[in-house]
Amino acid sequence: MKTQYYTASSLDGFIATTDDSLEWLFPLGDVNQTGYTAFVAQVGALAMGATTYRWMLRHVVKVDTSTPSPWPYEQPTYVFSHRSLPPVTGADIRFVRGDVAPVHEELCAAAGNRNIWLVGGGDLVGQFYDAGLLDEIIVQVGSVTLGSGKPLLPRVILHPELSLLQARALSSGFAELHYAVNKVQPEAG
Amino acid sequence: MKTQYYTASSLDGFIATTDDSLEWLFPLGDVNQTGYTAFVAQVGALAMGATTYRWMLRHVVKVDTSTPSPWPYEQPTYVFSHRSLPPVTGADIRFVRGDVAPVHEELCAAAGNRNIWLVGGGDLVGQFYDAGLLDEIIVQVGSVTLGSGKPLLPRVILHPELSLLQARALSSGFAELHYAVNKVQPEAG
Repeated sequence: MKTQYYTASSLDGFIATTDDSLEWLFPLGDVNQTGYTAFVAQVGALAMGATTYRWMLRHVVKVDTSTPSPWPYEQPTYVFSHRSLPPVTGADIRFVRGDVAPVHEELCAAAGNRNIWLVGGGDLVGQFYDAGLLDEIIVQVGSVTLGSGKPLLPRVILHPELSLLQARALSSGFAELHYAVNKVQPEAG
Repeated sequence: MKTQYYTASSLDGFIATTDDSLEWLFPLGDVNQTGYTAFVAQVGALAMGATTYRWMLRHVVKVDTSTPSPWPYEQPTYVFSHRSLPPVTGADIRFVRGDVAPVHEELCAAAGNRNIWLVGGGDLVGQFYDAGLLDEIIVQVGSVTLGSGKPLLPRVILHPELSLLQARALSSGFAELHYAVNKVQPEAG
């Protein structure tokens, strides 16, 4: 079981515009032309931040319309939020707050033998990284630059660096970069 | 002949730290394991900004030491600077300022049938992009995040987007992403 950050980013390292829009992403290609279907089949539980969840309520579930869509995931989804947020009927959504470490234990139990998908945003994933709980990063690099926006992963990861496992072109609109996160070794006694 | 931005970037889109350091880059691998040798053989002329030039004076030529190294390029190098900067003995360095378009004509004449390498920084390359004079972007994506720093290309490139030509892993420390820049089409009459 691995804890994976799977996301799309612009070439200049932004996952959303400053006002949290993902509109830049959709013209670049069909998600079914990516490795998404194979990826999500191996996911046993998801975690996301409040901004990501609210974006999904508006743009995926479309809660404000007369014909809302179902929540797209069967797997348990853990939503980190300090505020009370509305659930989605029929979806297994579990609201949590505070330190990521105890929630990660719950995620592991929920995921079973499958992987944990950290959906985002970047700062939530950074908290898993800080706690030594992030195993892999898989980025769909879109063929655009945004110039500003919400950062992919607002951390300094230099020592040790990431290890590139695979780089591939998915289409003219996307490259996929797949990294292993190397754990910081404890200092020798 | 193509005008190419060839550079290294962190995964989160920075080409240098906030204080213009490239120290993060060198532990990631040997430049000879990349496509650099094949790339530079096709270069007929280079252009760079003043910050990049001053960095090279200090860290490549090592002008402040008793045994400075030679300038690494035989090709004519155009340096954009508003200030007077020292030349390098024996090197074909041409100081220029102002709009990039007339300098691009000089670069084309100097490059002959070979390509023009825009070394950086990002804002100078952005000026070539703004003028419709940038043909390709080739990024060596290092397996690190910097969290902040000098941006790869401080522009919004969305309509039209870039076209990914190739993505490949060079080592665990570098991926290479190669893009064509699509020109903005004039509005139909």
